Amino acid sequence: MAQSPSIPKGTRDYSPEIMVKRNYIFDTIKSVFKLYGYMPLETPAMENLSTLMGKYGDEGDKLLFKILNSGDFMAHVPDNELQERNSIRLTNKISEKGLRYDLTVPFARFVVQHQSELTFPFKRYQIQPVWRADRPQKGRYREFYQCDVDVVGSNSLLHEVELIQMVDEVFRRLKIHVRLLINNRKVLAGIAEAIGYPDKLVDITVAIDKMDKIGLENVNAELREKGICDEAVEKLQPILNLQGSNTEKLSQLRTILKDSETGLKGIEELSTVFDYLDNLQINTEVKLDLTLARGLSYYTGAIFEVKALDVQIGSITGGGRYDDLTGIFGLKNMSGVGISFGADRIFDVMQQLALFPQDNMTTTQILFVNFGEKEERYCLSLLKQLRAAGINTELYPEAAKMKKQMGYADKKGIPYVALVGETEIQEGILSLKDMTSGEQTNLRVEDVITKLKR
Amino acid sequence: MAQSPSIPKGTRDYSPEIMVKRNYIFDTIKSVFKLYGYMPLETPAMENLSTLMGKYGDEGDKLLFKILNSGDFMAHVPDNELQERNSIRLTNKISEKGLRYDLTVPFARFVVQHQSELTFPFKRYQIQPVWRADRPQKGRYREFYQCDVDVVGSNSLLHEVELIQMVDEVFRRLKIHVRLLINNRKVLAGIAEAIGYPDKLVDITVAIDKMDKIGLENVNAELREKGICDEAVEKLQPILNLQGSNTEKLSQLRTILKDSETGLKGIEELSTVFDYLDNLQINTEVKLDLTLARGLSYYTGAIFEVKALDVQIGSITGGGRYDDLTGIFGLKNMSGVGISFGADRIFDVMQQLALFPQDNMTTTQILFVNFGEKEERYCLSLLKQLRAAGINTELYPEAAKMKKQMGYADKKGIPYVALVGETEIQEGILSLKDMTSGEQTNLRVEDVITKLKR
Repeated sequence: MAQSPSIPKGTRDYSPEIMVKRNYIFDTIKSVFKLYGYMPLETPAMENLSTLMGKYGDEGDKLLFKILNSGDFMAHVPDNELQERNSIRLTNKISEKGLRYDLTVPFARFVVQHQSELTFPFKRYQIQPVWRADRPQKGRYREFYQCDVDVVGSNSLLHEVELIQMVDEVFRRLKIHVRLLINNRKVLAGIAEAIGYPDKLVDITVAIDKMDKIGLENVNAELREKGICDEAVEKLQPILNLQGSNTEKLSQLRTILKDSETGLKGIEELSTVFDYLDNLQINTEVKLDLTLARGLSYYTGAIFEVKALDVQIGSITGGGRYDDLTGIFGLKNMSGVGISFGADRIFDVMQQLALFPQDNMTTTQILFVNFGEKEERYCLSLLKQLRAAGINTELYPEAAKMKKQMGYADKKGIPYVALVGETEIQEGILSLKDMTSGEQTNLRVEDVITKLKR
Repeated sequence: MAQSPSIPKGTRDYSPEIMVKRNYIFDTIKSVFKLYGYMPLETPAMENLSTLMGKYGDEGDKLLFKILNSGDFMAHVPDNELQERNSIRLTNKISEKGLRYDLTVPFARFVVQHQSELTFPFKRYQIQPVWRADRPQKGRYREFYQCDVDVVGSNSLLHEVELIQMVDEVFRRLKIHVRLLINNRKVLAGIAEAIGYPDKLVDITVAIDKMDKIGLENVNAELREKGICDEAVEKLQPILNLQGSNTEKLSQLRTILKDSETGLKGIEELSTVFDYLDNLQINTEVKLDLTLARGLSYYTGAIFEVKALDVQIGSITGGGRYDDLTGIFGLKNMSGVGISFGADRIFDVMQQLALFPQDNMTTTQILFVNFGEKEERYCLSLLKQLRAAGINTELYPEAAKMKKQMGYADKKGIPYVALVGETEIQEGILSLKDMTSGEQTNLRVEDVITKLKR
């Protein structure tokens, strides 16, 4: 009974200090989503295993958290299966539900299930935890939040443009300097064609994707390993090394991919997006990166990745266009595009660069010191006035020693302490102590409101 | 593969229309919590079963959703246990984690685990889903949100007062007329003493608690069934029927409970709370109800319940003081008091009474009609200006038929549509159509900002 309690490994409690910071990030992101007409959606933590299984590969199936059926779940397991002791096969007999692994599959499931009620293009954002039975390690958790924004039911490139605008605005507000890398899967397909291996698109994509981590030499080695001949690898080098502005790169690519219809289509898409962005003059550098591939195979058009410039960390946001997300649930031709903000990494970047604004991180603005019953009653009406003006305030709940009360304000990061004793009551004022400077000022409650509302 | 997808029974998707309304409720509640210095906390969805089991009674243990261990969970089950096919015993071998059943036990676990880092009194709110393997029925779900606010580490009655102030403020903002019923467990204990059955407190409490549902006659019958003699039941009647104001009731109770130290303590607590509230002049009627008992047995002082006055529905908020919440995890003498807002019921009340404010429920304020490539580019810069002014706006992503574009605005509940064709571009204006009145006005973008910011 009295053992020291703990939580499952790979999970976290979010203490108030952390929550306030996380909420600052999520609130910033949400307000930008809303500016662009994206609306909130939430789906259940539990999905039927039939919805989840087979969507994330064999490895993903293993990493799903499965929920034991309620009641006498063993009653229906056939004798021979029990003897067999095959955990995987037995799972199917004793578990029908699992915890969601990402927000994409539940979103696709939602769109298909509710297709007749939805207005397309359907623009939604979703910020919820997901669960993966991964081996926990630094920066990898078994429960973590995803923050996705997608639009489905439209193949207009204006959505690519607005997603980039949103990335620009979110990181401008969070004060994180970023670069947005962009590429297009059709261009990658064109490149595979151009070097003579249209059927090896996946292998080429997977290899190129590692450029950042393992370098050009090793990428080339991997390509050869996958059966790409020396000549083709040679042909690929100038493409991966294209220099110049986005426009210059695209113009060189037009020559290289002149015989690939798909490739040219990809170039046109990129060109249109760049053209819109030029007119809109966004702050973020948007850079065409032909080595950007993004592992997940369902992307079919634009792909994005956002890197923080002042911190060594992987990508903090990424996404792309997919032409067949809902096909897995039987609804064809539903093109969509979306991005996912990496909340944990964004948090780490802001923490490292001390970007959380001080004044947004305090919840209580004034603590009233409790001097006893008479003062207490007087203070309560002051608190009422301050709260009516939208100022967060607390009265220490008992007439404890001054040191203890000040310690409470200090530990909770409360910026002001109000002292109201007999003199102050007589004069109708309160003595407001600035906890940072130590300065103490006598003010009427109206003046306190003006001061703090400033 | 292509079967129509669905979600587990008892769970819900929260569509954008529902989410916007739910967020309105949660945002209102959260802003009041913050006014009083309560801070956000979140705990993991999964807790160790050792944390959860035995905390909710035998029935509760059965209703916990248990998570199957990862990997080859069958490998460690002894042969004889496998043969036994005892689902309950087997659960202990193949499952170590469960989904949280409420927010109270995880909160107690958090406080004990982090006691050395916390500042007491520790004031936190927590809004997260909980899961129960209950039989789903109307109004009862297997996944639902709880919205708890508690303070621990202080036995000051000022906290009872501020919780009542918070209830008053939340429902004033939501425009729900409510009555707050209050009682005190010590008074109930005093009553049990006064009628000669101090040892039957739980039976008496449980019976009285049903007054609302089954009426006085049946309550009396249940009391007799539990072995309370006729004389004692007779003695109880005038107590349950006390009439008059709170002060009058308390004054009568002082006589009735004059020999019970506990009872008198309870009366003093109630009296103090009423006294504070009188000074604060809150709008909500706070009524002493001696039949209010609240089933959960851990309450030890004040108990509260909030009823909506204009709708027939159970209590929409409730709570109380508990002197030994963290005792289950080995930390003694940690008194606390808290309340829980019933989000689903509050939602139903607001829906039935049409209390959701129209203008808070729209996310996009203006839809720009798409007339083609040239207009599109021009519009994008207008959208940029509007968004910079904080106005949520969208451009329809393609030059579709007018009817389709207007239909999109209509279905999404967008209040204004902007029409910008060649004439408007030349004149530097936009034609703004009010979707409710049908009225169309020519305005400069600055005027639109002024109009919508009003």
